[in-house]
Amino acid sequence: VRTFKLTLAYDGTEFCGWQFQPRRRTVQGMLEAVLAKITGQQYRVAASGRTDAGVHALGQVVSFSCDTWLSPEIFLRAINAELPDDMAALELTVAPERFHATRDAVKKRYRYVIHDAPKRDVFARRYSWRHRGRLDAEAMHAAAQHLLGKHDFASFETRGSERDSTVRTVFEIEVRRGRAGEGRAGQGGAIVSCFAPAVPMLEDKIIVEVEADGFLYQMVRTIVGTLSRVGEGKYPASWTAEVLAESDRRAAGPTAPPEGLFLLRVDYENGDVLH
Amino acid sequence: VRTFKLTLAYDGTEFCGWQFQPRRRTVQGMLEAVLAKITGQQYRVAASGRTDAGVHALGQVVSFSCDTWLSPEIFLRAINAELPDDMAALELTVAPERFHATRDAVKKRYRYVIHDAPKRDVFARRYSWRHRGRLDAEAMHAAAQHLLGKHDFASFETRGSERDSTVRTVFEIEVRRGRAGEGRAGQGGAIVSCFAPAVPMLEDKIIVEVEADGFLYQMVRTIVGTLSRVGEGKYPASWTAEVLAESDRRAAGPTAPPEGLFLLRVDYENGDVLH
Repeated sequence: VRTFKLTLAYDGTEFCGWQFQPRRRTVQGMLEAVLAKITGQQYRVAASGRTDAGVHALGQVVSFSCDTWLSPEIFLRAINAELPDDMAALELTVAPERFHATRDAVKKRYRYVIHDAPKRDVFARRYSWRHRGRLDAEAMHAAAQHLLGKHDFASFETRGSERDSTVRTVFEIEVRRGRAGEGRAGQGGAIVSCFAPAVPMLEDKIIVEVEADGFLYQMVRTIVGTLSRVGEGKYPASWTAEVLAESDRRAAGPTAPPEGLFLLRVDYENGDVLH
Repeated sequence: VRTFKLTLAYDGTEFCGWQFQPRRRTVQGMLEAVLAKITGQQYRVAASGRTDAGVHALGQVVSFSCDTWLSPEIFLRAINAELPDDMAALELTVAPERFHATRDAVKKRYRYVIHDAPKRDVFARRYSWRHRGRLDAEAMHAAAQHLLGKHDFASFETRGSERDSTVRTVFEIEVRRGRAGEGRAGQGGAIVSCFAPAVPMLEDKIIVEVEADGFLYQMVRTIVGTLSRVGEGKYPASWTAEVLAESDRRAAGPTAPPEGLFLLRVDYENGDVLH
């Protein structure tokens, strides 16, 4: 029996989230079914964290124990051959026996994309939050800086979950407007350069990136919803400090919708514990 | 009664193509239903050309006559309010009474996107052709240059249609590999920069663009399928000249799948006949 570490990307649009649910299309359910098909046995897989319905991943990390005789290279290929085309297995390595993707994660990075152009973008709709009305990215960035560091983020947790503590440390948080040079978008916005040069630009996208030692339930989406209120000019940049101090979800802004959220990366101790 | 010119974008994935079919989700059917809902009357709309199921548009042009009292601005807003989110009305103007989007088109431009990276890209799958095995973009570009100019393109028409002539003039045809500077893609490839910087690049996409005075049925997709054979190293760049000379569809390569194809732009006489 070996422990494997698998890096996974998925387009969350057509999944009812990560977590297994009977008769529902979930990422975990799909992966476990694929492993069962390849190995002939049932295995349980653990992710760095559960993503909600509609949330995407570019680098979700999953661990599982499995007694296959396949090499990681062949096993990875077999997994990709069986996965549906909105999931992709990017990397598979043998990890130390006790490695656990949930418990051992030390840092995660999320990105959230807001589309705030007056014109609808049919290619961005699955991958961004369509916000009516232009947002002030600089004000949002200033507001976000109050969240840096170690705080009680209870105000940014949608519902009380079973977690011991609502204290988390935010290492980095950045809000910026997409720059033209980054990719020539337009109608076809996010789909960018190969789909629509010569047309508008990434300037109609606002990108929020947050890196922390962990995230509470819907924390990124609540942060983004709160920052959007500042971006709309309804609150000053200092408002986020007040929201934080309240330790009450009712003090924060709305929960931004799931389609704009991407789990980018998960880090483990020692850079890479896996060799 | 006024004649309107409407510019339309759509994500073709969930449409059974442009043309109306009873009980099928088509772009034309959807647009006509929306116009009927707004005006209370049935109107027939004409597009610059029919796109097949799965083919996308960034700038499809549509004409229709309609006796609404709405101003173009208000009418456009009403149309967008009723359209599903995989369609967007970008521009609406009053055209000369006899304007007809199909008959009056003088030039069209298409783009085709091929994804030829070893790793699957879950965000590009709806918007590109996943080609297994790296392609030689330079050889494809050289092969494409034989198609420039006025030729009988019968070899590149999937089936005999009711058209009078299979002679068309290609004004421009370009094949190139996406450049890193264009947009930082990666897993999330086409979706580019706002979705995945710091990861691979647009280098895993090949972009084919063709501009002509008109296109035969599945002409772009047959050109791309043929060029892909050159890109695979199976034929020399000069092969396209031979295929052209045969005037027989069996001489050409396969028809590339619809999901990589985008109708970019349609031009009319006098730059813009519409003012």
